[in-house]
Amino acid sequence: MLSFTCDYAEGAHPLILKALTDSNLEQLPGYGSDVYCQRAKEKIRQACACPDADIHFLVGGTQTNATVIASLLRNYEGVVAAKTGHIGVHEAGAVEYTGHKVLPVPEHQGKIDPEELRSYLATFFSDANHEHMVFPGMVYISFPTEYGTIYSRAELSAIHGICREYRIPLFIDGARLGYGLESLQSDLDLPALASLCDVFYIGGTKVGALCGEAVVFPRGNAPAHFMTTVKQHGALLAKGRLLGIQFDVLFTDGLYLKIARYAIEMAEQMKGILREKGIPFFLESPTNQQFVILSDTDVKRLSSQVGFDFWEKYDAHHTVVRFATSWATPEENLRRLREIL
Amino acid sequence: MLSFTCDYAEGAHPLILKALTDSNLEQLPGYGSDVYCQRAKEKIRQACACPDADIHFLVGGTQTNATVIASLLRNYEGVVAAKTGHIGVHEAGAVEYTGHKVLPVPEHQGKIDPEELRSYLATFFSDANHEHMVFPGMVYISFPTEYGTIYSRAELSAIHGICREYRIPLFIDGARLGYGLESLQSDLDLPALASLCDVFYIGGTKVGALCGEAVVFPRGNAPAHFMTTVKQHGALLAKGRLLGIQFDVLFTDGLYLKIARYAIEMAEQMKGILREKGIPFFLESPTNQQFVILSDTDVKRLSSQVGFDFWEKYDAHHTVVRFATSWATPEENLRRLREIL
Amino acid sequence: MLSFTCDYAEGAHPLILKALTDSNLEQLPGYGSDVYCQRAKEKIRQACACPDADIHFLVGGTQTNATVIASLLRNYEGVVAAKTGHIGVHEAGAVEYTGHKVLPVPEHQGKIDPEELRSYLATFFSDANHEHMVFPGMVYISFPTEYGTIYSRAELSAIHGICREYRIPLFIDGARLGYGLESLQSDLDLPALASLCDVFYIGGTKVGALCGEAVVFPRGNAPAHFMTTVKQHGALLAKGRLLGIQFDVLFTDGLYLKIARYAIEMAEQMKGILREKGIPFFLESPTNQQFVILSDTDVKRLSSQVGFDFWEKYDAHHTVVRFATSWATPEENLRRLREIL
Amino acid sequence: MLSFTCDYAEGAHPLILKALTDSNLEQLPGYGSDVYCQRAKEKIRQACACPDADIHFLVGGTQTNATVIASLLRNYEGVVAAKTGHIGVHEAGAVEYTGHKVLPVPEHQGKIDPEELRSYLATFFSDANHEHMVFPGMVYISFPTEYGTIYSRAELSAIHGICREYRIPLFIDGARLGYGLESLQSDLDLPALASLCDVFYIGGTKVGALCGEAVVFPRGNAPAHFMTTVKQHGALLAKGRLLGIQFDVLFTDGLYLKIARYAIEMAEQMKGILREKGIPFFLESPTNQQFVILSDTDVKRLSSQVGFDFWEKYDAHHTVVRFATSWATPEENLRRLREIL
Repeated sequence: MLSFTCDYAEGAHPLILKALTDSNLEQLPGYGSDVYCQRAKEKIRQACACPDADIHFLVGGTQTNATVIASLLRNYEGVVAAKTGHIGVHEAGAVEYTGHKVLPVPEHQGKIDPEELRSYLATFFSDANHEHMVFPGMVYISFPTEYGTIYSRAELSAIHGICREYRIPLFIDGARLGYGLESLQSDLDLPALASLCDVFYIGGTKVGALCGEAVVFPRGNAPAHFMTTVKQHGALLAKGRLLGIQFDVLFTDGLYLKIARYAIEMAEQMKGILREKGIPFFLESPTNQQFVILSDTDVKRLSSQVGFDFWEKYDAHHTVVRFATSWATPEENLRRLREIL
Repeated sequence: MLSFTCDYAEGAHPLILKALTDSNLEQLPGYGSDVYCQRAKEKIRQACACPDADIHFLVGGTQTNATVIASLLRNYEGVVAAKTGHIGVHEAGAVEYTGHKVLPVPEHQGKIDPEELRSYLATFFSDANHEHMVFPGMVYISFPTEYGTIYSRAELSAIHGICREYRIPLFIDGARLGYGLESLQSDLDLPALASLCDVFYIGGTKVGALCGEAVVFPRGNAPAHFMTTVKQHGALLAKGRLLGIQFDVLFTDGLYLKIARYAIEMAEQMKGILREKGIPFFLESPTNQQFVILSDTDVKRLSSQVGFDFWEKYDAHHTVVRFATSWATPEENLRRLREIL
Repeated sequence: MLSFTCDYAEGAHPLILKALTDSNLEQLPGYGSDVYCQRAKEKIRQACACPDADIHFLVGGTQTNATVIASLLRNYEGVVAAKTGHIGVHEAGAVEYTGHKVLPVPEHQGKIDPEELRSYLATFFSDANHEHMVFPGMVYISFPTEYGTIYSRAELSAIHGICREYRIPLFIDGARLGYGLESLQSDLDLPALASLCDVFYIGGTKVGALCGEAVVFPRGNAPAHFMTTVKQHGALLAKGRLLGIQFDVLFTDGLYLKIARYAIEMAEQMKGILREKGIPFFLESPTNQQFVILSDTDVKRLSSQVGFDFWEKYDAHHTVVRFATSWATPEENLRRLREIL
Repeated sequence: MLSFTCDYAEGAHPLILKALTDSNLEQLPGYGSDVYCQRAKEKIRQACACPDADIHFLVGGTQTNATVIASLLRNYEGVVAAKTGHIGVHEAGAVEYTGHKVLPVPEHQGKIDPEELRSYLATFFSDANHEHMVFPGMVYISFPTEYGTIYSRAELSAIHGICREYRIPLFIDGARLGYGLESLQSDLDLPALASLCDVFYIGGTKVGALCGEAVVFPRGNAPAHFMTTVKQHGALLAKGRLLGIQFDVLFTDGLYLKIARYAIEMAEQMKGILREKGIPFFLESPTNQQFVILSDTDVKRLSSQVGFDFWEKYDAHHTVVRFATSWATPEENLRRLREIL
């Protein structure tokens, strides 16, 4: 069946499987100290124009978020995030499990507004009782957000400026980073993004890898003994090669961004089809996830022919659903989607 | 260079890579709900003769230990383990990070003695102050242990009996389970092991997989919502297929045990060579890890030609080192090892 | 200076100090096993009409909330609370520090609406992705709330019914319980309250004690080894007598409720004065805390003569402030307040 | 009945009760911001010759240990303690509950040996696998120890020197600090002790207070926002006066040390009596706790006439028991003890 359910429905980009197969019997040291990890890190440093970056490979997104956040917060601090931020909703309380509160601020199509962030921080520190409250110790944003939207360079710059003013780090969850950077609306590239935050991760799982997220501390600013923290969180693979080889391939000849761009092209075609069919959009997303409003009758009728993801109820008779493209979406599938619709 | 450093130096068994490649573009649902995971679970249930087993796939050993232990302990309980148990030494405090103490008992070549365990528990509960202390809430053993030794059926049965008497679960860390079960000394098989504990895991990472550990609750006795606990620990892969496909291959035609047996055969040959060369053993290990005592001069001399692992200082001039075989050790390497020694 | 700042500005009811002094040189066993603790528990059981209640004495409110909540939740569960609930705002993240999320629901003058609670729970369990989210594992309400309001018997009964339907416990934070029960609007007494929840605490600190909160599990339903949990939270006093003696006094001849009623009488007089002076109320509170809206000029002017508590900004030129009475408020102070206003 | 069970069997020094009563109706601000707390801190600073000390009042010992330790450790660090250290044995896992491992080193009558500590640290950092292990992030000692023994100035100086060398803080648990400093064997006073560690606490509960421990960071070196950490641990009293008033009294005219010295005098008399009666000592303790070996017949016989504390089994027919004096032990009781023995 035709599926636009998500961007992790297929395995890995074929070049990754080839590299895993080619290197399979090489004997390599464990825990990320192999040459593939070293090489991948060097290529990521170049792609980000961050020669001093500390880079660590972890396995999945929730794990990466919890590990990075816990490593940066002091015990009395929490992490500020949009109300719809992944860490506050769909990570089963992984951040709280490390002892830290997620401090929600309002969201606008998944994004934090810089002025509202400033106001939140100013209000907190001027509150006479703030020593009885959880301190905002860092800011978390996702790029793109859970609603597919992206921050402009100006917005990101404003948020980063506020964080520096309050001396708290800014962390960007880049589970779908490629799709954000390659969005037609994006005015950011990897070096710009790296310069406008304190730590971010380059999502592999949803952009062509079997698994794997590359955490980047752009200015060599990883907390001391971050590797031990990674181990403590159960996130250190014995066969670190599995991650090193994948990111080595993804950052050879710009593959990561190339396949992300392809997904965006497919998304733009898909948007055209949805628009052409008069299907209303729930919001304007410039990335690979599209959110549309279907009548419940249509949901029922269509779901026997095409896969999509239930998102939320819109009203008594309508539902918001997600159609996603990915690096692996065959163009042919779009033709078939048009026919079905 | 020739290497006997560890059992996670290579990638995966070639059949695993083939299966990953063959299925690569199939669109599958995420988070372990795909058909490969279902099929792998069914095969494991059969191999363990546990038709009702709850099975979950996690990514790595430390993660699995922390997740299983935290899911079974109540807040005021800790986990009893041999002083040399992996959870108490080389997991960066992952268990304590979840809020629980590791309660050490004496070890004998890595093993817990059933009578010492009984005495520990009896002493605890008869201590007038025990309500001020951490309650022993479960028992952890590794099979094989960190020193390559294994429990006999009688020993395991005794330990399990004591656990049942005190109504606390027994958890077996099977990071190298295959090598233990296929040891020439073993009188246990998967069904017997499954019947003599409350939860165990079948280690994939060190026995032919790229990554992955299969947690088995033999009698359908997983704690409620264990999947959410897995997610909370950052251990739930979006592309659950990566684990399902690997375990499906490993449990097809008995591959898992077959490749473990091969590693044992290589280990037996290696033991013969080491004995023949008059190298003293630190202890008698019946599995794929062999611990021998080398003079520091020999350590230095040999290490330019063959890889092995530093274990611990033996005395001022000698060192304990580990030589390990695995499913991937070429027979040819043993011939070369004999020449070098 | 005249002060209505809070209800913990004085020491303890004189009878408590007398009892501490009279018993001072008696040698008593530690950790709550003394006769005063036993006697106090028996009196509380009688006052609550709960002959089987498990009762534990802790020292302060935040500590009590964190200890009770952590003892009842499973690792994958969080606690549902009104957005303004004390545990979610002014406890420095003590609950999250134990690994659990506070799940906010809307508040109405500090209260949870039963229908909104039901809807929250129904929505959660019907969400296709709920296994990736924090499970609602208990409900927390405060009585009276942080805004001085109270639940009626019908409301509490509705909330408790919903909790039973979903099989999750209801916990009532009674930091100011006496002031709630003795409110002129209250249709609840101790036995009724005890029958409509699964655990609650009787606040001592704010109702006449130096410190101390009595946790009541009305039907002998304390979690196993709750005393060890209390110890683990650092909440077990060596000199448990300090708490036992205080609650023994407070529950002799109905002292606890008697002094709470006095505070309510003073509050009613104070409300009359505030109304008479035309000062607008921020909300209608039937207990000892009154919230009024003052112009910033008035705040400045008054604060040199009378103490009150800043609560929150109302608008650009007005502020919400709190005036509180307590068991120790001299009637004379109200006369002086009228003069000043 | 005559009792030498422990040093927390009575209430508080009468001057403390008098001060609580005298100040009872003063209206004071909460959470430790009152004048009594300020005054007590100033007096402690003077007694310690630490004009810049940060001082915080907490309620009990386990709470203080967990709070201080968690505030100083980074997530990947644990606390080194003697195997018999209170935090590792009788605090119900309170430290582990904050996510940190207690790292045991050998004990000698409750004390850490400086050379063994140095060797532990040196071994750790030279271990090739130490990044997979819990880092030693601070050292905990108790003064006096759980066995009543004390460190000499030379020993403490050596331990502190090693800590500085490894740049980890030294924390002294002073639950019975007075009894240690006033021991006839002690060559330390408060200023010396304060200069030889990074944080310590002055135990009130066991030396004359109802409850309360004063944490001293001698050189103004408290972690940022320590008050918020205290609140998060549930250790911040609303009526902070309860602690301030008590320590104000204890540090007026040297009361704290005076009453400790009295307990030591009583202990020396008691030692004389025990020796005279030919009762063997389990170890030589120079403080208020004495550990002797009794036959089980004697234990049975005596326990109907005099209270003492069971410590541990010595052999099949003998038991180690503790006799303790305190600030409140009447001299008359020693005369009666001699008669009974």
